[in-house]
Amino acid sequence: MGLPIGIFDSGLGGLTVVRAIRRRLPNESVVYFGDTARVPYGIKSGDTIIRFAAEDCEFLGRYDPKFIIVACNTASAVALPSLSRRFRQPILGVIEPGARAAAEVCGDRPIGILGTEATISSGAYRRAIERRIPGATVIERACPLLVPLVEEGRRPDDPLVRLAVAEYLAPLQAADVGSVVLGCTHYPLLKEAFADVLGPDVALVDSAEAVADEVAYLLSSYRMLESSGDAVQRFFVSDNPDRFRDVGRRFLGEDLAHVTLVSQDEFLKAPKRMPAHAATRSAADRLEETL
Amino acid sequence: MGLPIGIFDSGLGGLTVVRAIRRRLPNESVVYFGDTARVPYGIKSGDTIIRFAAEDCEFLGRYDPKFIIVACNTASAVALPSLSRRFRQPILGVIEPGARAAAEVCGDRPIGILGTEATISSGAYRRAIERRIPGATVIERACPLLVPLVEEGRRPDDPLVRLAVAEYLAPLQAADVGSVVLGCTHYPLLKEAFADVLGPDVALVDSAEAVADEVAYLLSSYRMLESSGDAVQRFFVSDNPDRFRDVGRRFLGEDLAHVTLVSQDEFLKAPKRMPAHAATRSAADRLEETL
Repeated sequence: MGLPIGIFDSGLGGLTVVRAIRRRLPNESVVYFGDTARVPYGIKSGDTIIRFAAEDCEFLGRYDPKFIIVACNTASAVALPSLSRRFRQPILGVIEPGARAAAEVCGDRPIGILGTEATISSGAYRRAIERRIPGATVIERACPLLVPLVEEGRRPDDPLVRLAVAEYLAPLQAADVGSVVLGCTHYPLLKEAFADVLGPDVALVDSAEAVADEVAYLLSSYRMLESSGDAVQRFFVSDNPDRFRDVGRRFLGEDLAHVTLVSQDEFLKAPKRMPAHAATRSAADRLEETL
Repeated sequence: MGLPIGIFDSGLGGLTVVRAIRRRLPNESVVYFGDTARVPYGIKSGDTIIRFAAEDCEFLGRYDPKFIIVACNTASAVALPSLSRRFRQPILGVIEPGARAAAEVCGDRPIGILGTEATISSGAYRRAIERRIPGATVIERACPLLVPLVEEGRRPDDPLVRLAVAEYLAPLQAADVGSVVLGCTHYPLLKEAFADVLGPDVALVDSAEAVADEVAYLLSSYRMLESSGDAVQRFFVSDNPDRFRDVGRRFLGEDLAHVTLVSQDEFLKAPKRMPAHAATRSAADRLEETL
């Protein structure tokens, strides 16, 4: 087994990223941390989100990941620059890949962004798109109900889901958007509801798939892909592993083996120094410089 | 200014309890702690909820409260026995007063309970009602969407609110309930939606009002009521005081003065020993014995 890809999220939403990574890169091992004791991040302040995200990264660091993915849109939007300064590993968020995919497929029409309160108010997607398409029209909409709708187990054809999705999408439709970013890892579970309202002329961008494509490209460029097939997935949570296993199954698309509860004392204890893997470090350092 | 009543909640929902206390007991000072860095408690494990609630109580202890109200239904359901063993002050949760009020007004019909996932799965309301009415029929329903609907600022006549409330109430109506407990401090903001669906034959129990009545009764019994009119309200939060002020206004029914952010370091530091107020302690000890 090679060095794993580390992935963290405020809770279980990031399992849609694990699912996309497993499809795209089946030989890669994954170590996942879900901060279920402090979920959700989307309504918290920037300072708090940065602190939580740094603690999550430090925890993953114990497993010597060759690459860290911030699967939480909120943490990507708010904490990524700070994390990249602080940690040695290359760190990729979900915002840049999602913004890039949306810019590529919008066909000169405005771009719609859906996300949590904190993601939208950060303006991170807007900035990432405007760097690619100066003067682009970006229509943003915070959708606070969609995460609880998904976590309650509601499906795309549920009447409450239909009503909420139609309401949130209305201003995007009025602006005639050409692509819409599902800027929260929970939203792909309601993809059919968005597609039904928007119709075939609007491209839906799933950030989880966009980040998996980006990771595949980066690891391949730096010859850091695993070739053998003994990949292992390990999941760690800061609370409630039973709920994580139950609800997480729908996000991952299969049963979760190896879910481990990390106590607060264990979580916050001083991190070990990372083991030195000279060869990998060297590749990782080169990779980091490009991000 | 006399010793304050301490009130804590996982976030801002407990402000409906502050509002009820202010109406019922206008001379009482209040010190409130909202754990907005770790909100919500409703999807967390029992062990975590107990730990968080104990830390919240310890923080309030620094302000020498004569009485502590656990305004969070989830924490009341899960943590109250542990808190009562651990702290000197009399501690009252919202479950017992709500259950008592529901039992009094149900008219021999079944009793309905609405709450968060953790409150409902704890069975605390069911047990509290069955102690009063052995063999009572209790219909419980977790309503995970209602808190985000309220926090998004939606009103009782919003189409999504109507649809969600109608769906959650359906099994209670089918059972012909005589009273329904709004077992979450957010729900009173949607009271009209519940009343419209249930009609005038079903009594709605607002836990916030029930707990204010109970506190008034207990303080009055032990002659611990304040008689002067210089009451002060102070609010402390563990994150995002701006959002607390903005959204909290709707819960409190007026502007919030004196909202202070407590940093994590400040929050978790070793608590000071409580000042000794011999007279008050003596009354408080007698009061504690009756709870």
